[in-house]
Amino acid sequence: MTQNSAHASHLILGVCDYPEHVPPDRWEHYAKQQKALGLTHVRLAEFAWSRLEPEPGAFQWQWLDQVIDILHQEDMQVVLCTPTAAPPAWLVHAHPEILAVDAQGRTRTFGSRRHYDFASSVYREHSRRITTAMARRYGRHPAVAGWQTDNEFGCHDTTRSYGPASAAAFRAWLQQKYSSLENLNAAWGNVFWSQEYTAWEQIQLPNLTVTDPNPSQVLDHARFASDMVKEFQEEQVRILRECSPGRFVTHNFMGFFADFDSHAVAACLDFASWDAYPTGLLETCSFLAEDLKHKYARTGHPDLISFNHDLYRCLKNNKQGFWVMEQQCGQVNWAPHNPLPADGAVQLWTAQAWAHGADGVSYFRWRAATMAQEVLHSGLLRHDETPDRGHLEIQQLQPRDFVPGEVPAQVALLHDAESLWLFDQQRHNQHLTYWQQVMLYYSTLRSLGVDVDVVQPGADLSAYQVVVAPALTLMSEAHAANLKKASEHAQLVFGPRTAFFTETGQAFDKGQPGSLSELLGGRLKNFDSMRPTLKEMLGGYEVTLWAESYRLQDAQALHVYESGPLAGECAVMQKGNVLTIGAHSPGLVHDLLREVALQAGVSVLDVPEGIRVSRRAGKMLVQNFNAYGVDFLGTRVPAVNFEVFEDT
Amino acid sequence: MTQNSAHASHLILGVCDYPEHVPPDRWEHYAKQQKALGLTHVRLAEFAWSRLEPEPGAFQWQWLDQVIDILHQEDMQVVLCTPTAAPPAWLVHAHPEILAVDAQGRTRTFGSRRHYDFASSVYREHSRRITTAMARRYGRHPAVAGWQTDNEFGCHDTTRSYGPASAAAFRAWLQQKYSSLENLNAAWGNVFWSQEYTAWEQIQLPNLTVTDPNPSQVLDHARFASDMVKEFQEEQVRILRECSPGRFVTHNFMGFFADFDSHAVAACLDFASWDAYPTGLLETCSFLAEDLKHKYARTGHPDLISFNHDLYRCLKNNKQGFWVMEQQCGQVNWAPHNPLPADGAVQLWTAQAWAHGADGVSYFRWRAATMAQEVLHSGLLRHDETPDRGHLEIQQLQPRDFVPGEVPAQVALLHDAESLWLFDQQRHNQHLTYWQQVMLYYSTLRSLGVDVDVVQPGADLSAYQVVVAPALTLMSEAHAANLKKASEHAQLVFGPRTAFFTETGQAFDKGQPGSLSELLGGRLKNFDSMRPTLKEMLGGYEVTLWAESYRLQDAQALHVYESGPLAGECAVMQKGNVLTIGAHSPGLVHDLLREVALQAGVSVLDVPEGIRVSRRAGKMLVQNFNAYGVDFLGTRVPAVNFEVFEDT
Amino acid sequence: MTQNSAHASHLILGVCDYPEHVPPDRWEHYAKQQKALGLTHVRLAEFAWSRLEPEPGAFQWQWLDQVIDILHQEDMQVVLCTPTAAPPAWLVHAHPEILAVDAQGRTRTFGSRRHYDFASSVYREHSRRITTAMARRYGRHPAVAGWQTDNEFGCHDTTRSYGPASAAAFRAWLQQKYSSLENLNAAWGNVFWSQEYTAWEQIQLPNLTVTDPNPSQVLDHARFASDMVKEFQEEQVRILRECSPGRFVTHNFMGFFADFDSHAVAACLDFASWDAYPTGLLETCSFLAEDLKHKYARTGHPDLISFNHDLYRCLKNNKQGFWVMEQQCGQVNWAPHNPLPADGAVQLWTAQAWAHGADGVSYFRWRAATMAQEVLHSGLLRHDETPDRGHLEIQQLQPRDFVPGEVPAQVALLHDAESLWLFDQQRHNQHLTYWQQVMLYYSTLRSLGVDVDVVQPGADLSAYQVVVAPALTLMSEAHAANLKKASEHAQLVFGPRTAFFTETGQAFDKGQPGSLSELLGGRLKNFDSMRPTLKEMLGGYEVTLWAESYRLQDAQALHVYESGPLAGECAVMQKGNVLTIGAHSPGLVHDLLREVALQAGVSVLDVPEGIRVSRRAGKMLVQNFNAYGVDFLGTRVPAVNFEVFEDT
Repeated sequence: MTQNSAHASHLILGVCDYPEHVPPDRWEHYAKQQKALGLTHVRLAEFAWSRLEPEPGAFQWQWLDQVIDILHQEDMQVVLCTPTAAPPAWLVHAHPEILAVDAQGRTRTFGSRRHYDFASSVYREHSRRITTAMARRYGRHPAVAGWQTDNEFGCHDTTRSYGPASAAAFRAWLQQKYSSLENLNAAWGNVFWSQEYTAWEQIQLPNLTVTDPNPSQVLDHARFASDMVKEFQEEQVRILRECSPGRFVTHNFMGFFADFDSHAVAACLDFASWDAYPTGLLETCSFLAEDLKHKYARTGHPDLISFNHDLYRCLKNNKQGFWVMEQQCGQVNWAPHNPLPADGAVQLWTAQAWAHGADGVSYFRWRAATMAQEVLHSGLLRHDETPDRGHLEIQQLQPRDFVPGEVPAQVALLHDAESLWLFDQQRHNQHLTYWQQVMLYYSTLRSLGVDVDVVQPGADLSAYQVVVAPALTLMSEAHAANLKKASEHAQLVFGPRTAFFTETGQAFDKGQPGSLSELLGGRLKNFDSMRPTLKEMLGGYEVTLWAESYRLQDAQALHVYESGPLAGECAVMQKGNVLTIGAHSPGLVHDLLREVALQAGVSVLDVPEGIRVSRRAGKMLVQNFNAYGVDFLGTRVPAVNFEVFEDT
Repeated sequence: MTQNSAHASHLILGVCDYPEHVPPDRWEHYAKQQKALGLTHVRLAEFAWSRLEPEPGAFQWQWLDQVIDILHQEDMQVVLCTPTAAPPAWLVHAHPEILAVDAQGRTRTFGSRRHYDFASSVYREHSRRITTAMARRYGRHPAVAGWQTDNEFGCHDTTRSYGPASAAAFRAWLQQKYSSLENLNAAWGNVFWSQEYTAWEQIQLPNLTVTDPNPSQVLDHARFASDMVKEFQEEQVRILRECSPGRFVTHNFMGFFADFDSHAVAACLDFASWDAYPTGLLETCSFLAEDLKHKYARTGHPDLISFNHDLYRCLKNNKQGFWVMEQQCGQVNWAPHNPLPADGAVQLWTAQAWAHGADGVSYFRWRAATMAQEVLHSGLLRHDETPDRGHLEIQQLQPRDFVPGEVPAQVALLHDAESLWLFDQQRHNQHLTYWQQVMLYYSTLRSLGVDVDVVQPGADLSAYQVVVAPALTLMSEAHAANLKKASEHAQLVFGPRTAFFTETGQAFDKGQPGSLSELLGGRLKNFDSMRPTLKEMLGGYEVTLWAESYRLQDAQALHVYESGPLAGECAVMQKGNVLTIGAHSPGLVHDLLREVALQAGVSVLDVPEGIRVSRRAGKMLVQNFNAYGVDFLGTRVPAVNFEVFEDT
Repeated sequence: MTQNSAHASHLILGVCDYPEHVPPDRWEHYAKQQKALGLTHVRLAEFAWSRLEPEPGAFQWQWLDQVIDILHQEDMQVVLCTPTAAPPAWLVHAHPEILAVDAQGRTRTFGSRRHYDFASSVYREHSRRITTAMARRYGRHPAVAGWQTDNEFGCHDTTRSYGPASAAAFRAWLQQKYSSLENLNAAWGNVFWSQEYTAWEQIQLPNLTVTDPNPSQVLDHARFASDMVKEFQEEQVRILRECSPGRFVTHNFMGFFADFDSHAVAACLDFASWDAYPTGLLETCSFLAEDLKHKYARTGHPDLISFNHDLYRCLKNNKQGFWVMEQQCGQVNWAPHNPLPADGAVQLWTAQAWAHGADGVSYFRWRAATMAQEVLHSGLLRHDETPDRGHLEIQQLQPRDFVPGEVPAQVALLHDAESLWLFDQQRHNQHLTYWQQVMLYYSTLRSLGVDVDVVQPGADLSAYQVVVAPALTLMSEAHAANLKKASEHAQLVFGPRTAFFTETGQAFDKGQPGSLSELLGGRLKNFDSMRPTLKEMLGGYEVTLWAESYRLQDAQALHVYESGPLAGECAVMQKGNVLTIGAHSPGLVHDLLREVALQAGVSVLDVPEGIRVSRRAGKMLVQNFNAYGVDFLGTRVPAVNFEVFEDT
C-alpha cells in the first residue's frame, strides 16, 4: 500500500488532534466522539518532540502508545507526524548553530516553531535520529495508516536561512553545479557590476546587498534552498520507507506557497496534502480586490481554494489524489481579521475538496487549544468541550455521497516555481505578480465552468485539449521542447512575459521569447509596465498594468493596440493552434479563453458570479459561494451550499 | 507633608525650566517673570546629570545651588528631578552594558535619552548614587517642595530591553515566581509546539522568534519589565524619603501608556503626575477617526485628555489628586503635524485639568530651547524671550477660581494593564485594540455628562453606583471576587472579550468567561472578528469589527443578532444588575450605558458634540472644545472656552 | 582643454556602452552603428574593475585597448570611468573592512554595487591605485576626451556609512573642526539631555539612538560624510589631472540628490553631469501629486527634469555647461512602474536638455543588458540587437540645430544642501519637505516662462534681477551678508522657515530670522504646522500645511491671515525690494512671484499647463509635455514635441 486512500470507498474524514495538550482522562472519550462524528483518521504527534524526547536520548513513548492503542480499539486510523518542525529547547540550547538566520541577518530564536536551518548538518542528524526512533516504535503498528513529514515546510518565511550553515552549503551546491567559477560567472553574468568571483569562498548569500542582488544568483539561491528542503525530507522519507512499510508518506503543503519547488519536494511522497484555510487565505491574499475580499469574507474565494486543490492533486503528475490535511472548520487566529465562516461553509469546503480530487479531509483541530499561540483558533470542540459550529456541520455531512474517482480535466494550466521566483524578483511593475497573472487565467477558466489540472511545464501534456501557460517567464530548452510537442495535439495559450529569461535568469541573446519564437510565430517588440492609473484600449477592451507587443513572423495579429505608445502594434498573435496574449486585460482574456476552449471541444458554461462547477467520478458539483441562493441549471442552489448532479 | 497640594488653597501653577540651557545672567530675571505670571513652582534638573556630575564623582552643585536660591528669594518652590533619564556620555562609555537593546536586537546608542536597561544592576547602582548625592544636597532645602523621579518612564519604547542584563534578570524573576520549570511549563502551556524547558538557562526573551511568541511568555515578560521599572523607581524613592523628609515624590507618567503597570509603579509615590500634550496625543492616537482628528486638531480631543486625568487621579486608589507635570502651552515638535493650539486652548486645558482633579499644572517649558532636539518646541517665552501665545493666556487665568476638592464620580471604569497586554497581543482583529474598546465606553459616558473614575479591577469599588469593565480580558480569581462583591451594590457592565484568559494567559478549561459565568449568567458561544467592511445588524444597531454571542444560563437576552453567522443568538445578556455587551456597536453601547446610569441613579445629561461637563468641589465646569460657540444649560459657551457653574 | 564641449559646434550626442558585456566580435559593428546614428562619444569602463584587474595587481588592458582603438578608428571619442563604484570580489574578501554599514548597523554585502565606505583608508588606497593604473594606461590616448569619476556617488543611500571606518574618521573630523570638546559641546548644545562629551572617543555616529538624535550632530555628520565624498573624488581627480592632461573630468550626479553637497564635491571637476531618467524621477518623487504623476507618466514632469538641468548647469557657478551623462531612451527597470516613454519623448528630453544648457547628452545604454540586475532596462538596441524606439527617435534628431550658448537667466533660485539637511531633519510637518517647498517656487517661475539659474546662497548674485530663496532655513553669517549685498540691486523673495537655524543648527538667541531681520524688516512671530485636512484663508488664497506670521519692524504687511490662530497677523511682509512669504499657498506664491518678476523687468509669459519655454543662445524652445497638441505663440506645438523660435 502506498496510498491509503486507494482503499477508501468514499471521502475519508479525519481530524488533527493533540492529546498531549489535554489530560489523559479525555483520550478515550475523545476517540469515541471522533468515531461517532464519522471521522476515521486522527493525525497525531505534530510538534510533540519535547514530550517524546524530554531529555536527549531519553524517549517517553508511553503516552503516545496509549493514545494510539485507544484509537486502534475504536478502529480509528492514525497519521503520525515527524515532530521536526519544533526542535525542543534542550536541542537548541546545545546546538544554537541549527537556528535559522533571517534576511536581515538576525538569528531567529527559540520560542515558537520552524526555528531551524534546513542546511544544518547538525539538525539533519537530529531529524534523522528522531524520525528513526518514531518509525521504529510505530512504523508497523496496525493503526498507523501513514506519515506526515514535519509541518508546513517554509511557513513563516523559513525556507531560506542566511546564516553560516546555509552559506557553506550554498557554496558547496554551487561548486557541484558549476564545477568552475568561469561557468558560474558566465551563468550569473557576473561581468555586470564587477561581480566576478575568483575564489569560491568569496561567494555570499544574496542578502543585505546595497541594491538589488543579481537575479541569477537569487534564482540559484532559491533553487539551492528548495533542494535543501527536498534533501531534508528525503532523509526522513528514506527512514520511514524502511521502518514503516506499506504506510503512505505525505507532507502538508500550504496554499500559494512556492518558496521551494513543491513538485520536486513531493517526488518522494505517495501523495501531496495541503492545509486549507479559506478565510485566512483570502485575508492574506496580496492580489485579491477588496470588494471580493468583502464578498467572500465568510467563505473564502472559491478559486483561491480550488486552485490549490488542483495544484496539489496534480503535484505528482499522476493524479493519485491528495489530502486536505488541515481543513479550517471555524475561525482561525492568524489573519488580520478572522471572521466566523458562514453557516454551511465547512460542508461546502469539504464537498469542494472532494470534487477537486481530495481523498481525505482532516479538520484542524479537535479541541480548541487552551494554551499558547493558538488559543483563539477554533476546533471542532470549544475550549469547554462543547461541539462548535463546524462539528455540527460535519455531523450533517454524508461522506458516502463523495466517492473516489478521476477529475476529468481537459485543460492544463502550467505553473512553474522557477518562473515565479524570477517573475517576482524582476517584477518591473509593483502591482503585478506571478500569482496575480496566473490566477487571472485560472479564475477565467473556472468562471467558464472548465475543470483544470495545474501542472508543471515539464509534465506529460498528451491528455489535454488545451494548455494554458499564463506566466512561464523562465524557459528552459526542455520546457520549450515539451510545449512544442504539446502543440502537436493541443491548443496552446501563452500570457505576457512568456520566455523572458533563460534557465540561468539571463535574457536570450536573440531576444524574447528565445527558442519559442518559432512556436509562437513572432518575437517580442516592446513591453509597457503601467502605473495603475494608466489604461490603454484594444478593440473595446481595457488594458492595464502590462502591455507587450509583437513583431510577427508567421503568426497573425488577432488584436492590435489602439492607444498608447504601442498603438498599431500587435497585442495578441496567433499561429495555428498557438495563441499569445500580450495584454493584461481580464475582458480580453475571458473572451479569448472561451473561444479557445470551444475550438478545442472543451465544454463551456457561463457560470454566475459566486457559482462554481466541478466534476469528479461522473458527478458534477455545483457550489454556491454567494450569501444568497442562485438558480442554475434548473435548480435553486441555496446560499453557501452545493448540489450534486450526474455529469452528463 | 506627603502631598504638597494639600496645602494649596487653589490650583498650583508651575513651569518646567532648564536654567542650565541659558546664561546665568537670565536666572534672576526669569524667576521674577515667572512669579509675576502667577506661577509658584518651578521644576528643575531634569536631564541635568552631565552638569551636576561632569566627571565621575566630581559633582558641580554651585549652579543649581544658585538657581534654587534665586527662586527661594522670590518665594518660589522647586520640584527637583532625579536626572536618570539621561545617563551621561562618560557613564555610557565606561559601562556600555547599561545600554538597552531593542526588540530587533540592536543596541541603542548614546545621543538622545532613555538609553538604559531598567534591569542593569550597574545602572541601578549609578541611579542610586546620583539620587543620593542630589537628595543629600537639596533634600532639606526650604524651597524644595518635592521630587520627580527620572522622566517619562518607558518613553520611546524603552520599558523592555532585549539585552543580556534583562535576559539574566528575567530568568531570575521567573525562577522566583515559579520555583520549578514544571510550574513554568504548565503556566505557559509549553507543551504546545514543544516549547518545554528543561533548564532555566534555555529561556530567552520573547523577541526575534520565527512567528508569534508564546503569549503567556509575553505576558510574564511584560510583568517582569514592569517590575523592573517599579524596582528602579523604588530604589530612588527609598533614598528620597530618607534624605528629603516631608517632600512629595511623584513621577510624570504619559498618556495612554501602559507598557508597565502604572498602578503598581505609582504605589511608592505620594501622587501621580502626567504630561499632557493634547495636540500630540491626538495626532499620534492610533484609534481616533480622521474626521475627529481634523475637528479637534487645535484643541486635542477632550476625552483623550480627560481619560488620562481620570486615570492618574485615581492611580493610587485614594483620590489624593495628581499633577499635570508638563502641560502643553504652544506647538509641540514631535507629532507628524504640530499645529498651533487654538486661541484659548491653554486656558481650557488648565481648567479641564482642575475640574478632573489636578492640584497642580506645570507648563512645559519656560523658554523655548535654542538648541538640540527640541528647538522647534514652544515655551512660554519664545527663543527671543518675548512672551509667546501661551504666556499671554496664562496671564489672564484666575487660578483662585480653581479650588481643591473632590471629583464626585459615581461611575468607575475599570482599566487593567495586564488585560491590555493580552488583548493587544491576541487581537484577532487588527482594527480593534484595547484602548479603542475602553475609550468607546469612556467617551460614551462622558458624552452623557457622567464623571468617571478610572480604576484598577482590584480597587475598592464600594462607593460606586455603576462599574463598567469594557475590556477585562484577563480575569484573575481575585478580580473575579472583587467584581462579584461590587455586584452586591452596583450596576455592572461588561464589554466584549471579558474573561477570555486566565491569569497565566491561557483559556479557561471551562471556556469563557471562566469563573465569571455565574455572575454574568451565561457563557460565551462564539466570537466573530470582522473585517472593517463587514457589518451585521442588531435591533437597528450596526455591529462592526467584533460580535460575540452567549449561551444563557440564568441571564436574559436583551438583544439578539439579526444577521450574520450569529443571527438569532444572544448579543447582550442581563442577569439582574449585571449587563454583558458582546457587540462592538457605538449606538448600542450609548443607549445601554444611558439606561444603566439612569437605573443606578446617576444623573445623565445629553451634551452636544464637543461639549464636556466635569464636576469638582461643588462646581461644574462646562467646556467647549468646538471652534464655535454653543448654547448649553441656558448659557452661550464661547468657542474653545469654558464656564463654571455651581453644581446643583 | 578643460572642457571638451567648448570645442563642439553643436550638442554632443553620446552613449554609455559596456563592450565587456558582449562578445568582441560585436565591437566594430557597434562602433560603426553608433557613428552612423550621429553619436560622437562613448562612455566606457564603468564598473569594469573585475575585467581590468581580475586578480590583485594583474591588470588586463588588452580588451579595453582594443575597444578604444576601434572607436578611435571611427573618429569616436571616449569618456572613461574610474571603476570604483564596484570594488571586485577579491578586494572585498581580502578587506571586508571597506564595506559600508547601514544606519541599522548591518554590514552591506558584496553582490551589487557601491558597497564601500568613503572614509575607509584601505579603500581609498585601492581607489587611487586603480585610478592611477587606468590614467597611466589611457590618459593620453588621443581618443580619450575625458573622465567620469566612479558612478552616481551616494546612490542607494551610500553616502553615509555607520561602521568603524566612518566612526573613527568622524571623530578625527570633529577634532579638527572644533579643537576642543568645549567648543563641540557648545556647538551641538549638548547640555540638552546631558549629551556633553568629556572625551573624543565617547562620540558615536548618530544612528540607533533611542529617539531623535541631536540635529546639530546630524548636521555635522552630514557635512562630514559630504567631505568624505569630496576627498574621495579629489584623490582620483588629482591623479587624472596629472596623468591625463587636457582631458575633462566630470562626475555623473543624480536628480534631487543632496545627501552630500554637490557644489562642494563638484569644485574639482571641469563641469558637472547628471543622469536624467524622467519617468523614474517621476515615479519615485515623494512630493509630486498623484494626478500629475498620472498625466506625465510617459514623459516625466518637465520641471522635475529641468530643475536638475538648471542646478547642474550652475553647479560650478560659472555656467560652463554640463552633460547629461545618462539619458533615458526607453523604459527603465528600477521604479515601481516603468512605462514606455511616449512617442517623441526622447527627442523632447534631448532638446530640453540642450535648451537648459547641456553641451552633451549621452544615452543610457547602447544595447540592453542580457544579464544581471538591469536585464529589463532598455537600450538603444534591444537584446536581439534590433534598434529600439529610442534609437529611431535619435535617428531623426538634428543635433546641429542645437548650438551652444548661454542660458539668459535673470532669476536665481537659491538651493543649499545644508538647509535641506536641517529642514528635513526638523520637518515639524511630515507632509512638507525641503524639495517640495523649493519646487513650488521653481515650478511657479517656470509656469511664468521664466528662465532660472539654481545657485548656492554663497554664489555671485550680481547678475540677477530677482533672487528667490524658498527654503534657506540654515543661515550663516556669510550667506546673510551675500543676500544683503544682492538686495542692493535685485528683488529678493524669501519663503517660509527662512533663517530658522544658525550655522550649527541651533535657533538664534534673538529668534528667527536671526541677523536677516533687518534685511527682511521683521521677525518671526509664530509658525503653524497643519495636518493636510486643515486649511486657513488669506485674501482669497488657501493656506495649507504651513503658515508663519511676522512682527513687523520696518516692513509692511502685504497680506494678513484671515482665519485660524494667526488671524489678523502678517503673512507676507515687504521691505522695499525684499519680500517674505510666510504662507504655504501655491496661488499666493504664483501671484507674488509674477508681480516681483514684472517689477524687476523680467519678462513673464503665462504658459499653458504642460507647456514650458526655455531660452538659450538666442533661441527659444517651446516644449509640449502634453499628450495633445497646444496652440501657443501662434503655432500649434504637437503632442510630446517642441518648436524652436528665435528669442526676440
